[in-house]
Amino acid sequence: MTKPLKLNPDRLFPADSKERDIARNLYKSVADLPIISPHGHTDPSWFADDEAFPNPAQLLITPDHYVFRMLYSQGIALSKLGVPTIDGSPTETDGRTIWRLLAENYHLFRGTPSRTWLDWVFAEVFKLDVMLDTETSDLYYDVMAEKLNSPEFRPRALYKKFNIELLSTTEGALDDLRHHKKISESGWDGRVITTYRPDSVIDPEFEGFLDNVEAFGKLTNEDTTDWAGYLNAHRSRREYFRNVGGATASDHGFETATTANLSPQDAEALFNRVIKGNCSAQDAELFRGQMLTEMARMSLDDGMTMQIHAGSCRNHNQSVFQQFGRDKGADIPVQTEYTRALKPLLDAVGNEPSLTVILFTLDEDNYSRELATMAGHYPALKLGPPWWFHDSPEGMRRFREKTTETAGFYNTVGFNDDTRAFLSIPARHDVARRMDCGWLAKLVADHRLDETEAAEIAKDLTYNLPKKAYKL
Amino acid sequence: MTKPLKLNPDRLFPADSKERDIARNLYKSVADLPIISPHGHTDPSWFADDEAFPNPAQLLITPDHYVFRMLYSQGIALSKLGVPTIDGSPTETDGRTIWRLLAENYHLFRGTPSRTWLDWVFAEVFKLDVMLDTETSDLYYDVMAEKLNSPEFRPRALYKKFNIELLSTTEGALDDLRHHKKISESGWDGRVITTYRPDSVIDPEFEGFLDNVEAFGKLTNEDTTDWAGYLNAHRSRREYFRNVGGATASDHGFETATTANLSPQDAEALFNRVIKGNCSAQDAELFRGQMLTEMARMSLDDGMTMQIHAGSCRNHNQSVFQQFGRDKGADIPVQTEYTRALKPLLDAVGNEPSLTVILFTLDEDNYSRELATMAGHYPALKLGPPWWFHDSPEGMRRFREKTTETAGFYNTVGFNDDTRAFLSIPARHDVARRMDCGWLAKLVADHRLDETEAAEIAKDLTYNLPKKAYKL
Amino acid sequence: MTKPLKLNPDRLFPADSKERDIARNLYKSVADLPIISPHGHTDPSWFADDEAFPNPAQLLITPDHYVFRMLYSQGIALSKLGVPTIDGSPTETDGRTIWRLLAENYHLFRGTPSRTWLDWVFAEVFKLDVMLDTETSDLYYDVMAEKLNSPEFRPRALYKKFNIELLSTTEGALDDLRHHKKISESGWDGRVITTYRPDSVIDPEFEGFLDNVEAFGKLTNEDTTDWAGYLNAHRSRREYFRNVGGATASDHGFETATTANLSPQDAEALFNRVIKGNCSAQDAELFRGQMLTEMARMSLDDGMTMQIHAGSCRNHNQSVFQQFGRDKGADIPVQTEYTRALKPLLDAVGNEPSLTVILFTLDEDNYSRELATMAGHYPALKLGPPWWFHDSPEGMRRFREKTTETAGFYNTVGFNDDTRAFLSIPARHDVARRMDCGWLAKLVADHRLDETEAAEIAKDLTYNLPKKAYKL
Repeated sequence: MTKPLKLNPDRLFPADSKERDIARNLYKSVADLPIISPHGHTDPSWFADDEAFPNPAQLLITPDHYVFRMLYSQGIALSKLGVPTIDGSPTETDGRTIWRLLAENYHLFRGTPSRTWLDWVFAEVFKLDVMLDTETSDLYYDVMAEKLNSPEFRPRALYKKFNIELLSTTEGALDDLRHHKKISESGWDGRVITTYRPDSVIDPEFEGFLDNVEAFGKLTNEDTTDWAGYLNAHRSRREYFRNVGGATASDHGFETATTANLSPQDAEALFNRVIKGNCSAQDAELFRGQMLTEMARMSLDDGMTMQIHAGSCRNHNQSVFQQFGRDKGADIPVQTEYTRALKPLLDAVGNEPSLTVILFTLDEDNYSRELATMAGHYPALKLGPPWWFHDSPEGMRRFREKTTETAGFYNTVGFNDDTRAFLSIPARHDVARRMDCGWLAKLVADHRLDETEAAEIAKDLTYNLPKKAYKL
Repeated sequence: MTKPLKLNPDRLFPADSKERDIARNLYKSVADLPIISPHGHTDPSWFADDEAFPNPAQLLITPDHYVFRMLYSQGIALSKLGVPTIDGSPTETDGRTIWRLLAENYHLFRGTPSRTWLDWVFAEVFKLDVMLDTETSDLYYDVMAEKLNSPEFRPRALYKKFNIELLSTTEGALDDLRHHKKISESGWDGRVITTYRPDSVIDPEFEGFLDNVEAFGKLTNEDTTDWAGYLNAHRSRREYFRNVGGATASDHGFETATTANLSPQDAEALFNRVIKGNCSAQDAELFRGQMLTEMARMSLDDGMTMQIHAGSCRNHNQSVFQQFGRDKGADIPVQTEYTRALKPLLDAVGNEPSLTVILFTLDEDNYSRELATMAGHYPALKLGPPWWFHDSPEGMRRFREKTTETAGFYNTVGFNDDTRAFLSIPARHDVARRMDCGWLAKLVADHRLDETEAAEIAKDLTYNLPKKAYKL
Repeated sequence: MTKPLKLNPDRLFPADSKERDIARNLYKSVADLPIISPHGHTDPSWFADDEAFPNPAQLLITPDHYVFRMLYSQGIALSKLGVPTIDGSPTETDGRTIWRLLAENYHLFRGTPSRTWLDWVFAEVFKLDVMLDTETSDLYYDVMAEKLNSPEFRPRALYKKFNIELLSTTEGALDDLRHHKKISESGWDGRVITTYRPDSVIDPEFEGFLDNVEAFGKLTNEDTTDWAGYLNAHRSRREYFRNVGGATASDHGFETATTANLSPQDAEALFNRVIKGNCSAQDAELFRGQMLTEMARMSLDDGMTMQIHAGSCRNHNQSVFQQFGRDKGADIPVQTEYTRALKPLLDAVGNEPSLTVILFTLDEDNYSRELATMAGHYPALKLGPPWWFHDSPEGMRRFREKTTETAGFYNTVGFNDDTRAFLSIPARHDVARRMDCGWLAKLVADHRLDETEAAEIAKDLTYNLPKKAYKL
């Protein structure tokens, strides 16, 4: 027997009726605000080329590591889910077959944000009104496949339908930004900007680092075997990302939050060791740390906001990495230290009110201990929203509970969806708005805030703070 | 003035009336399911011999480290509580006197799970209807002492009365399982199985390790001074535990979660250093880590589920350890790392869907950071329920709040009571059922789940998942 | 348009009406109990001299690091807030101008405890009935400035008005306690006692350590270049603090909780290295650790309660430290280990029921893992209330949720306001009483406690436990 699929208008609001009423009112005031998405991983070619998305499985399962990691955890091979192999050995290609695996195992997602996001996509984007299960699998596939072929489901049409005001993608330092160029030359009025993500030319342990740095030199006409030239290459690419891709921010993702603030001579000597190849693990760590400080200094000069995403142990599953490569749901968080790690960068630029460095963590223990306490003091620091696995109702609740009292609301920067899953973007922002309104409603019900203040904050969190933090 | 003792039928349900109603309904559907107790520390001789339990103090205070640690923390000497000394120097033996100490200090347990468990035992098992305090101490003692002598209070009768379907004890690798043999030969239809716990022959720092390994060799007719022989001895005991004790699982408890995956040559060389005695602390740690991986490989072969309990600093109180020995409430948790520690084992066998490795932690920070993220990816990993001090209403709430969104419900394995306190087993399972139903009720009230799904999950958590995870 | 300022009588109580009713009743029974403030940082000269406080800005902004750190985090220079510089270079002195900066930026404090405390001070102490904002800034300033000049706003009058029974300040080992002497000689019946805080003569890395130790020797007529003499100097000062300042406790604040328990010979050798100056960082850490154990031993002898505040990385902001000195909102918490760190001290004196060592942490992860588990076992250990940044509604809730089940209520010691902000003391105690009553109400509503027990606990937490723990 099929079950109805209906999104309750009160979903995720507090259970208490007083709080729920307040939350409902607050939500009403922000529900229709445009989406600001200042950090994410959608593919800019979608908006450049505006072609139809492929079949439902290739759109919603194969590229979404939240979805396939859960299926994999229960013994379903990645190859059966169509995840492409590195050596090109064949994996399942039939979308309907792959889709059925999700349908049969949809109960695994009970209680997870993936379920919330997917149900929203099914109900709101595809207007499906029965729940996904074994019985409805084909119905789902047919309805979605058909709609995906219609003009209303092209990327640009969805961008408009989703009421997106700005969408940022993320590109590596060597990217030529051809898709962003194409978008801006097309005259389309959507705003899809890039973010400068130079990990591959900063991290000596990144695959192909030396080749990357060489290409980096060619691209910028700088001698990147020389410290000054290497730094100039960054300046040059940052400018290119701003001018051609509309970038307003850089992003940096390393396993630790280590920073360094060496003297110019020591920094140059370190670079000279690194650029010879085969530097020690210690030197690699120090170089990443020094470069975070260099990037912060460039941000002071060129006004770009800086994001630091620390704490993920990438490619933890050796065999999955060898067969399927990066980003296959096998990045596992590790404990992360910030207080001592960030001190060198903060000694250098932490007191600059014109600089914005946004911190992200996968280690929630740091919210109240290290991150809120630093963001509540240093003018240059702001707290990014709950990241990755914590981008969920309970994760968002913990974030506000543990950061608000020490950092306040105004040292946070609103929501990031951080996703490749374009169709789920409105669902993710909707969850964030609901959870923020629920938290504000609690503060109002507790008489810690009055309702007009709460409404002002709700709008700030949804719209004003991200625009300010990312200079949009 | 004596106060009434009455267990409220709504105890531990959420306060909000909507959530409470849902929780009550869910609970109704699982309250009468049989108890599956796949991990615990009851004494198998109770069920083998089926004799009357000794007096109330010896049953409920002297062996329960939750109870006597709290009394001790407020200055009551362990000797006054009848805890036996290592050197045989006398301690209090009068049950009534010991009982009075609990009665006089029962207020210390306010807000603790011990209070919840004990009150349940008093009300449900002994049908007492006044609260324990100084005034009612003798009444309690008399009522309980009398009942403990009646046939309805024999272990096997209570097992039936408690609606237990399966109860697992835990025995060391050198145990002859005589009690399990006696139980199975007795024709009694209760199912009391053992678990293989080989710490004393795996941990080079365990008291008497070398002697233990020698006895291990004699028991199995293997040359346990030889690496291959030593491994065979484990295979042989695992088989014995399965055949004679009905074991379906092994259990391993070390201070860290360190694992290793050495080459066969390096493993053998390490074993040769260890078996000479006086290996370094580093070698001891490496050997424990290597053996976890060896045990996982044997589990792949013989189908036994593997449990890892990490993070307790045992025997923290030197003076208590010297006077009273192990397990005297003085094991204190330490911060525990899992992401890097488990990688070697996971590289070896983590992608095997037929293997089940159940992880436990005393470091709740790991729930959302390391444990849920790994269990939500690796086919071989499942999350054990909240352990030890966290086996409590708030501990259970935190467990679900911090693991569900990333690992889902189906990478968890239901409840373990993990107790020596036989009489409290139903109380502990009851707390778990109530807390799970409360959590599900919240998800339903938030419109994250519908009620029929929640009912299915409630049953899975209570009954189906433990049976599956432990292959029962 | 000005907004009314009104403190809701139900503020901070649980939203659920059942719980709220219970909380309200419990609160009623403790709201009027006198304030016991056994740990804090008010200035004893206030009570010795009983002069009028300076202007509102100098009273409420310039000395309160909670307030100016938040303003600073949003780019407002400390010099504009009147914070004095080390080199005497001028900073803003006009109180009205400084006050306006707070008024214009008061929205930054939404959701923070500072807002709750300040609003209480505005409404209850100064009888202001409109909210602070740009428009009401001058009104606030005028009203407060006028009242501060009246006799009812002198320190001793406020002490009485606030219903304070005891107030402890904190003085360094070299302090002559002249203010406490003056207070006691004045015949005033308020009880303002001191606390022995010897960090400056114990920590080899403290500014001026060797000079401090020399002065310490002169003050006590002991040879503090000699280990025995140095220990005697402590004994002597402890006695002086008890006799002259009424001290009942010592307090110790280091970055880690490291303790040591060296043999007398090794301790003496360590001291000899330390007293030569330029000891290694390792020796410094070991010496601090050894001295914690020595202090605990002296506490056993002289009956003083011992407090350990660990986990703050002091003076994190180099530039703020150089310009403005210590205690300028730039102390940032770090992860802190207790289980292994405290073992040496506990091996020495942890089993002594007559000793009270109160532990504080800035690392909330330790509540359930290390602190509650140790306090629930060791007779000498008690848990201090949530400290510093965690002295807030959510911080207090987390403290009870994570410690009660394992340590109970009776291994905690009631509330500390720990503040320099004298006017906010009643507000802080009021928040603690409300949050404790809310937590107890939840336990009653969950049927984990009955209401008469909860009322007893509420009174114990508010009044009896601090008096007992601090021997007042």
